[in-house]
Amino acid sequence: MRIYSFYEKASRAFNDHPSLSKVLAVVVVSGGTGGGLLAYSDSKSYNVEQAVSSPNAENKKKKLVVLGTGWAGTSFLKNLKNPSYEVHVISPRNYFAFTPLLPSVTVGTVEPRSICEPIRKMVKKKDVDISFWEAECLSIDPVTKKVKCRSTQDADSKEKAEFAVDYDYLVIAMGARSNTFNTPGVEEHAHFLKEVEDAQKIRQSIIDCFEKAALPTLSEEERKRILHFVVVGGGPTGVEFAAELHDFVNDDLVRLYPKVKELVKITLLEATDHILNMFDKRITDFAEEKFHRDGINLQTGSMVVKVTDKEISTKALKNGGQISSMPYGMLVWSTGIGARPVIMDFMKQINQGKRRALGTDEWLRVEGTGEIYALGDCATIVQRKVMEDIGEIFKKADKDNSGTLTVKEMQELVDDVLERYPQIELYLKSRKLKSIVDLMKDAKGDASKESVELNIEEFKSALSEVDTQMKNLPATAQVAAQQGTYLADCFNRMEECEKNPQGPIRIRGEGRHRFKPFRYRHFGQFAPLGGEQAAAQLPGDWVSIGHSTQWLWYSVYASKQVSWRTRALVVGDWTRRFMFGRDSSRI
Amino acid sequence: MRIYSFYEKASRAFNDHPSLSKVLAVVVVSGGTGGGLLAYSDSKSYNVEQAVSSPNAENKKKKLVVLGTGWAGTSFLKNLKNPSYEVHVISPRNYFAFTPLLPSVTVGTVEPRSICEPIRKMVKKKDVDISFWEAECLSIDPVTKKVKCRSTQDADSKEKAEFAVDYDYLVIAMGARSNTFNTPGVEEHAHFLKEVEDAQKIRQSIIDCFEKAALPTLSEEERKRILHFVVVGGGPTGVEFAAELHDFVNDDLVRLYPKVKELVKITLLEATDHILNMFDKRITDFAEEKFHRDGINLQTGSMVVKVTDKEISTKALKNGGQISSMPYGMLVWSTGIGARPVIMDFMKQINQGKRRALGTDEWLRVEGTGEIYALGDCATIVQRKVMEDIGEIFKKADKDNSGTLTVKEMQELVDDVLERYPQIELYLKSRKLKSIVDLMKDAKGDASKESVELNIEEFKSALSEVDTQMKNLPATAQVAAQQGTYLADCFNRMEECEKNPQGPIRIRGEGRHRFKPFRYRHFGQFAPLGGEQAAAQLPGDWVSIGHSTQWLWYSVYASKQVSWRTRALVVGDWTRRFMFGRDSSRI
Repeated sequence: MRIYSFYEKASRAFNDHPSLSKVLAVVVVSGGTGGGLLAYSDSKSYNVEQAVSSPNAENKKKKLVVLGTGWAGTSFLKNLKNPSYEVHVISPRNYFAFTPLLPSVTVGTVEPRSICEPIRKMVKKKDVDISFWEAECLSIDPVTKKVKCRSTQDADSKEKAEFAVDYDYLVIAMGARSNTFNTPGVEEHAHFLKEVEDAQKIRQSIIDCFEKAALPTLSEEERKRILHFVVVGGGPTGVEFAAELHDFVNDDLVRLYPKVKELVKITLLEATDHILNMFDKRITDFAEEKFHRDGINLQTGSMVVKVTDKEISTKALKNGGQISSMPYGMLVWSTGIGARPVIMDFMKQINQGKRRALGTDEWLRVEGTGEIYALGDCATIVQRKVMEDIGEIFKKADKDNSGTLTVKEMQELVDDVLERYPQIELYLKSRKLKSIVDLMKDAKGDASKESVELNIEEFKSALSEVDTQMKNLPATAQVAAQQGTYLADCFNRMEECEKNPQGPIRIRGEGRHRFKPFRYRHFGQFAPLGGEQAAAQLPGDWVSIGHSTQWLWYSVYASKQVSWRTRALVVGDWTRRFMFGRDSSRI
Repeated sequence: MRIYSFYEKASRAFNDHPSLSKVLAVVVVSGGTGGGLLAYSDSKSYNVEQAVSSPNAENKKKKLVVLGTGWAGTSFLKNLKNPSYEVHVISPRNYFAFTPLLPSVTVGTVEPRSICEPIRKMVKKKDVDISFWEAECLSIDPVTKKVKCRSTQDADSKEKAEFAVDYDYLVIAMGARSNTFNTPGVEEHAHFLKEVEDAQKIRQSIIDCFEKAALPTLSEEERKRILHFVVVGGGPTGVEFAAELHDFVNDDLVRLYPKVKELVKITLLEATDHILNMFDKRITDFAEEKFHRDGINLQTGSMVVKVTDKEISTKALKNGGQISSMPYGMLVWSTGIGARPVIMDFMKQINQGKRRALGTDEWLRVEGTGEIYALGDCATIVQRKVMEDIGEIFKKADKDNSGTLTVKEMQELVDDVLERYPQIELYLKSRKLKSIVDLMKDAKGDASKESVELNIEEFKSALSEVDTQMKNLPATAQVAAQQGTYLADCFNRMEECEKNPQGPIRIRGEGRHRFKPFRYRHFGQFAPLGGEQAAAQLPGDWVSIGHSTQWLWYSVYASKQVSWRTRALVVGDWTRRFMFGRDSSRI
């Protein structure tokens, strides 16, 4: 499970503290020349080129603005090596968080700071001019090529400065928000688990529930309600949180809050029939059995329809849709993601209003814009369908304009076509065919023939089913990190590939694409199940479950840490947990 | 510097997890019998005796309520071994915090959780029935012997349950609050440094200032203002914080925020002429010189008179009291403590309204109440004056009622008198006299004589100056911890000492006091000065300054940790800081 590609380089970070006089030069010098407070205005937006000290050399640099410091943005920045850009990073968080460990942070198995690395530290080794501004993006204007931002400090102050930043290239990597599917009461009463702050709040809230249940004023019924923890969403995050919570309660809390063991209840609600349904059935079965043994109450086929401060109403998706309700003390909502408001506004501007995430082409460029790229959870790659281009493919391949396609003609174009339309390869695999030529032969009904000729209608019919194999990529750290690396690589070779394009032949145009399209490589996925057991599904349907898998998980997650500091801290946290348990101080 | 006396026992904590079925039995069972929610009312206050399961055995237990889990309260609970009490601990914090490391927490040298230990964990090894309720004390009623409390959870909820607890003995160890001396604007704009949360807020605020100053919209003047950190109070806490901040900026932040080095300014304001004025002059001089070399702006003789969101107004205490003002970005207020509102209300009830802290006798009993004890920062020992009791002392000593006191008569009472009035010993020391008999001889003007006889007037004149040596104890962790240990020892031997009193002879009454009065033993004090240097003043005017003292500081503070867990974490944090520096993620 290769989540993060810069592990190799991170090992150099330790004991490596070069002086960084250039990193923030732009920011500080600009203040000197700018004079007073420069608020946002269209006519006088913040222009970095005016401010840099050496206009001759620097003016040639193109301004590259990166929004976000999550997996996608950070992976992009770490891998960007081309010094011909002036990079401005804008994010409300001045750190990168290793989000796969967030469920561990909710109960103190790992401390919040152990999974955070300041973004300035991560990008400071570059020769590239990178400045960071802690601000949130308010709007993107693709016409004037400006991003409007607002400082995140002083939440209640009038000082919250707004400013605008010009860009030549814009990389949108802002991630997503939790999706409540407009279920009433969720926004107000549920905890989410996307940010480090969310995990900290969950931790406090768990302790609050135990302290509250220990007070002398409560009835037994109230105590039971307060100690009922509900998790909505049977995906890896929800399952891992439920498992961590179960371990926290049984390993640590029951010792300090005896007698509550009989009162504590953990419920996991899942709308479909099984938890972890993106995993192999063996894993799902194991997880469900383990949760059953652990006494975690598993309610599948049950959808939350309403949440109040003390009750959750659910609707059974079978058996006539019966509505029932349960009292609860704490609710963690971990099901599905949605687009952030600023992304939704931007999508409306560029006529993508009906999408759920920013649509990009296979090179991560946002459809309908110039030089705007989007990656990670805020974006989705809209793979071109073969059937949309079938006429052009036929024409490109039929070099002699004979109106029929021979095997030889097809073979000349086959590599480019397979690169451009990865669904063809998936389809061939699913049909257990070796090549597209076999498909052509198959279409003619005679696979033994050496030479086949297809006219356009026969060609269409041969490929008519391939688009059914198109799949959206999952919203995971793995995808985001690979996209960041890919895009950085494109920017690194931008000038080179303009001259010598390396991508596939343009089917609808002339020449070749500059770059090869992004291709995701799946390295597998873990599902920690608590009690020092985990499940892993690796490529090739390789499934591993149990205690040894938990140790594999430990070693993979330790190795994937982004710095020696966080690696030492995370391993230290695990060791501390083994020796002393988890802390239950309410801070 | 022996801050905490239970170090010896803490070593047993590791790998020692007995089952604790009794600790919370009272709380949980009471819920079962109580039925509904039992709100506060005078007629139906929460009575633990009604609820305990075994009335015959348990009803005999006296109810001991402890308010607070700071140094005093925790030290009391750790040392309480007498199983004949039913103990209820009430505090808004479910943990003990090792407060002397708070300045280190403000900049991330030590993590907040490394100095916190759950109070339930600390007291769970006892045979004593101890239950903890996370609640704040709202009022104390010494007439009905009830404490009114309110749950601290759900700050905005109506649920905040109020309840009352009966007591037979009450131990008040609620600490103090920061004192703003009613300086306008301090409450609103300053940071304090008393709680773990304060330290966490300061840490965020420092990073906020640096991130804000890095934004492109600010003028040079604004940047300078934002990066001006002001500390008010030149005591050990203020000095240590200023030193830690200086190290954080210079060791860590300047690498990530280059060019700000010239803009950052740290100012330490002190009203008197010198910082650290409770220390030896050598330490003060060294500290002032070091701060001067470090570029920390030291303004002594300057009192803050007003604070707004961006400016601090100060008044020079000399040279005509000139008022001046300085722009600032962050202010930490660390000068003086005051009584908490609930303590002030209680003081009014018991006619102590004019005091600054709860006055107790030398046995830590609150004056004017029955079995209420107060210790730590919320209390002050009102030492009985010799001159108030001089007639009774004379009468007690003059056994033959001759109207004159011989050396022999005095010698019989001298140990009790010295124990009851410690100021006499201090006075003898200051006059370099060996014993009270020397003082008597001295009064007669002839020290060579073997036998001296004094009448009452001569006796009065001999002792007339001794009360000038009375001193209030400092509000330190050391004092609070020693008081807790002392009081626990009294409770442990309560029955025994009722029968066989071990204290000095009662001067105004008959017989002896049950216990020896509390006597503080000063083990010295540290002042960390940053840059791996510290100063220490140990008993006997032994002064140590420099790098080696910092290592002494490390070893003392590591050894004084209250558990193996916190010890491992604090040492781990120091190691992490040495290897990787301090984290600047804004979480």
